Amino acid sequence: MLKAILVISDGMADRPVKELDWKTPLEAAHKPSLNQIAKTGINGILDPISPGVPPGSDTATLALLGYDALKVYSGRGALEAIGSGVHVQPGDVAFRCNFATANEKGIILDRRAGRIENKDATKLADALQKIKLKKPSNTSFLFKSTIQHRTVLSIRGPKLSTAVSDSDPGKNGEKPQEIKPLDNTSEAKQTARIVNDLLHDFHKTLEDHPVNAERAKHGLPQANTVLCRGAGIIPNIKPLQQLFDIHATCVAAAPLVKGVCKAAGMQILNVKGATGTPQTDYTAKAKATVQALKNSDLVLLHVKAADVASHDGKAKQKVEVIEKIDGMVGYVLNHVDLGSTYVAVTADHTTSIVTGNHEGDPVPITITGPSIRCDNVKEFGERTCAEGGLNRIRGKDLMPTLMNLIGKTEKFGA
Amino acid sequence: MLKAILVISDGMADRPVKELDWKTPLEAAHKPSLNQIAKTGINGILDPISPGVPPGSDTATLALLGYDALKVYSGRGALEAIGSGVHVQPGDVAFRCNFATANEKGIILDRRAGRIENKDATKLADALQKIKLKKPSNTSFLFKSTIQHRTVLSIRGPKLSTAVSDSDPGKNGEKPQEIKPLDNTSEAKQTARIVNDLLHDFHKTLEDHPVNAERAKHGLPQANTVLCRGAGIIPNIKPLQQLFDIHATCVAAAPLVKGVCKAAGMQILNVKGATGTPQTDYTAKAKATVQALKNSDLVLLHVKAADVASHDGKAKQKVEVIEKIDGMVGYVLNHVDLGSTYVAVTADHTTSIVTGNHEGDPVPITITGPSIRCDNVKEFGERTCAEGGLNRIRGKDLMPTLMNLIGKTEKFGA
Repeated sequence: MLKAILVISDGMADRPVKELDWKTPLEAAHKPSLNQIAKTGINGILDPISPGVPPGSDTATLALLGYDALKVYSGRGALEAIGSGVHVQPGDVAFRCNFATANEKGIILDRRAGRIENKDATKLADALQKIKLKKPSNTSFLFKSTIQHRTVLSIRGPKLSTAVSDSDPGKNGEKPQEIKPLDNTSEAKQTARIVNDLLHDFHKTLEDHPVNAERAKHGLPQANTVLCRGAGIIPNIKPLQQLFDIHATCVAAAPLVKGVCKAAGMQILNVKGATGTPQTDYTAKAKATVQALKNSDLVLLHVKAADVASHDGKAKQKVEVIEKIDGMVGYVLNHVDLGSTYVAVTADHTTSIVTGNHEGDPVPITITGPSIRCDNVKEFGERTCAEGGLNRIRGKDLMPTLMNLIGKTEKFGA
Repeated sequence: MLKAILVISDGMADRPVKELDWKTPLEAAHKPSLNQIAKTGINGILDPISPGVPPGSDTATLALLGYDALKVYSGRGALEAIGSGVHVQPGDVAFRCNFATANEKGIILDRRAGRIENKDATKLADALQKIKLKKPSNTSFLFKSTIQHRTVLSIRGPKLSTAVSDSDPGKNGEKPQEIKPLDNTSEAKQTARIVNDLLHDFHKTLEDHPVNAERAKHGLPQANTVLCRGAGIIPNIKPLQQLFDIHATCVAAAPLVKGVCKAAGMQILNVKGATGTPQTDYTAKAKATVQALKNSDLVLLHVKAADVASHDGKAKQKVEVIEKIDGMVGYVLNHVDLGSTYVAVTADHTTSIVTGNHEGDPVPITITGPSIRCDNVKEFGERTCAEGGLNRIRGKDLMPTLMNLIGKTEKFGA
């Protein structure tokens, strides 16, 4: 039976940089396994959303799974929440939140409350969950800490909207912003009011909480404020199972990517040692992928590391990370049956080590497998792949392309 | 700060022709500066609208500015009017008109009334503007001469439509056509009636006007008829300022292109010596562009000349014009900071010197700049660029591509 592995290396694509003799980090890296795929496969460039548009990892992953992100994207909060294992129902409006440290004037000193440890964060979150939502009476909330300062706030009720602004100012040295409705609906106004009231109550409870008194005693930053951003609901999308009649599995550490995969109905594997950082256990992820393929038609193997190096502006680290990813891909190539498995490698977006930002440049894509129109490309890279047989495609076209190769697309017409 | 220059050479793209040893005029031209951009940049081909669709300069320019012309295009008349400096409000239905010469049977002898000089045209237009619109009473009109025989008629009122046909038969030797509603709405019917009535009244006033008596005395063709075409309203589009947070400037002579740029909220420069003909002052336009870039994020430099040569079927003249445009681009390259400026060159459409028409073939596009994935293309041309790293994009994708390079696109997602 034909199967497919899709490796998404987060933020791997880049622009040529002086520091690497005007090569991109991908071009500069030693990458025999990625080159093997390019050499034996078909290559191209891919616009995750459309030319010039810098995608987030959430919209790009939605697109790479075959969805029209411009139509179905419904905010970050709920995706990250379900990716963190928090139960969010369709219709719940969820926010990504942080425990933060504010001074007596309310100015944020540390958006991450000293990266507060899980134990303290859990106790504080439990205390906040006990607060009674004053009104409306038919509305409730869920507040849960996930890792360190990271928490999720999810509101459940009949008249809610994601059209509200963030309270998180995005940097230290400023006060939290009042959450504002972003349109004129009563839903947006009510949602903003509920969350503003809650954050106010959270603050009061946190100020008086013994955990914070204890932290103060030990000279630790107090987690006395909650910052919210990225209001979202679970996107209304059909699961991959229904679209392509496949069982699909996700091997990823980043909660946002896991959330997108969960929304797409994929099975989520939690791999020991997978951290979403350059220090992740690449081999463990490769092994998990090989293992998962036994019971899956498709395995998505996502690695966050190259994006982290890019945001930090570290060219050499990005090259090293890509070389580790090459090793991970090599393990996969050596342990799956290439007579029945298609392996595709791409990035979810370009992240420039110069700007430190997601950019709208296309990403390279390579696909090898048992029955493919292989082209003359010999190396995997942003510019070499642009000469390949796939030419230039959109992110949402990749999944049908892969599903077509493994015989999982339906004929349109007679 | 990063900036961009977009050079649009109107109708420059072509097909290989026997007269040029089966080269295109662009391929046949000596063009060191255009080749310099191609050699140091990224190249591709671009479908202004979509493959095979011959665009007008208005729809193509809308697309190259990032708009979906298929959705926002609302006719030529209002664009040309505002590009000629005529005040047209949103909702006004405007026509491009000509003073023309008809014989006693009403047959058009000269669609341009001997390219009547501005002085006479202005006097006649003033006389026509004094006519009272009979009905409906809540509707008014504006009639203004622009250059030579060219005039604008703009109707203002509550129940108007652009769904009306032209009175201009498009060639000499025929009678003006009755303007007809193109759909069943009362707005279209009323607009057709208003304009038919007006044109009838215009004819009577022109026949009796002393300017025409004087022209007859000197053996000049009488401007005794007004021909209308291209009913349009100003397109409902967001300005570039709002879409990309940029200040954008247009250096162009062609009223239609200036109108599109004005509708996009761009600053319009009037350059002395810029005529919209092959005899235009190329250096003056280049200088204006360099100057404008000082206070702009984006300068659009439009040159009409290659299109004029194409419509006239003059291969050698088209080659010469392209060589002059190359010199103009060379001036720009030598006078801007290439460490912070992206320079793109393309055409708005293919114009065939054989057919004399706009054609639906794609156009070449080249972009150079400080941080770009340069490819292996060495020469700027229709066929060489097809091998470049941009592959094949749509007109509306060019502006996001450029804005992405200068850091002016917003991330979609998180």
